[in-house]
Amino acid sequence: MPLCFNLTMNKSIVLVSGGMDSAVTAAIAASLGPVAFLHVNYGQLTEARELKAFTEIADHFRVKERLIADIRYLKEIGGSALTDSNIEVPVGDLSKKEIPATYVPFRNGHLLAIAVSWAEVIKADSIYIGAVEADSSGYPDCRTEFFASFERAVALGTKAGAISIKTPLIKMSKAEIVRKGVELGAPLSLTWSCYKETDAACGRCDSCLLRLRGFEGAGVKDPIPYRQGE
Amino acid sequence: MPLCFNLTMNKSIVLVSGGMDSAVTAAIAASLGPVAFLHVNYGQLTEARELKAFTEIADHFRVKERLIADIRYLKEIGGSALTDSNIEVPVGDLSKKEIPATYVPFRNGHLLAIAVSWAEVIKADSIYIGAVEADSSGYPDCRTEFFASFERAVALGTKAGAISIKTPLIKMSKAEIVRKGVELGAPLSLTWSCYKETDAACGRCDSCLLRLRGFEGAGVKDPIPYRQGE
Repeated sequence: MPLCFNLTMNKSIVLVSGGMDSAVTAAIAASLGPVAFLHVNYGQLTEARELKAFTEIADHFRVKERLIADIRYLKEIGGSALTDSNIEVPVGDLSKKEIPATYVPFRNGHLLAIAVSWAEVIKADSIYIGAVEADSSGYPDCRTEFFASFERAVALGTKAGAISIKTPLIKMSKAEIVRKGVELGAPLSLTWSCYKETDAACGRCDSCLLRLRGFEGAGVKDPIPYRQGE
Repeated sequence: MPLCFNLTMNKSIVLVSGGMDSAVTAAIAASLGPVAFLHVNYGQLTEARELKAFTEIADHFRVKERLIADIRYLKEIGGSALTDSNIEVPVGDLSKKEIPATYVPFRNGHLLAIAVSWAEVIKADSIYIGAVEADSSGYPDCRTEFFASFERAVALGTKAGAISIKTPLIKMSKAEIVRKGVELGAPLSLTWSCYKETDAACGRCDSCLLRLRGFEGAGVKDPIPYRQGE
């Protein structure tokens, strides 16, 4: 297999939530050049567990430039099962067509805005985000057209001008993402995807179901612990 | 003069920094229908003074729905004279053509993202922001094209879909803004524009110079206190 070098070695920022998709995205970005990692706490139920996953993934990649941003106002704004404990996290059904209750209003708009500001200051010229459109929960802010239009807004609204938004997983199935992660040696055992639990994954929320479907499709065993008998 | 009624009475969110432009924008929005006010702290030098102005302006308009969001990570990111005390706030010169040191990287991207998330939850269908392009400091995120492209990204990246971004001052000179504020009875005496000081305005930073030029052009006395003999 030919080795590819990025001769310009431009720096990228990777949005690393701590989930599987972000770890695979990080592995892709890190294979191409220097990276800085951004994690955002937004008052979600599994905030502490996700932060732990972020730190372990960043340690794995030996990333020096890290930023942990807090947008707790998203919890105050609410409107999502992930930030409002009065709204139930849906379990056991990926067949529904409407936008699920776990949609956090315009969350990716916030994540990208933070990455863009940081990119301007640390002179990164691209931002990687592990959004998945094809085999996903149906969030509007995970669609290709959204990222393209946000990139255009960034070009017009910043001093830096051109900051590229990269979504290498956007058209992949979850099984393809698992395969890509295995191929690149992404630290899948350090990742956390469950929306509900923080010790062993529930195995029933949308995020667990999508993840498990991916591992099953790829013929790979998911290395993280799941609750038994539920 | 004919009275105009907005029969649908859709709710709007107004971004109220506490400065003159935001107070005039608030007066325009409040003349058209119900409003909710959003203020954002971002670790800027005059944060406490601007928050005081926000509260007094919101009290003036008897606004019940208020959100104060904290994006202190912008101070950690830095890169601006407004958030990094090691970068000098420029004084006394509006003639320079480049983007000034007071540019906060992509700040309006963050403000709009917060407003968009809140709009989705409280069912507001428009967001007012007092950005000024014509007679301004030259920030890229204050340009008409930026707002148009951000609005497009919002349409693609939210559940709500169409949330309108309104910039009623964008083409006005500062003098026109003062005149509009006086005409609508906007509480200009409660506003704060100075980038540097919090007791009496410095009268020398870009923001003070633009404001004073506006009052002078309108033939109106600025009601706020300025430092003497500097």
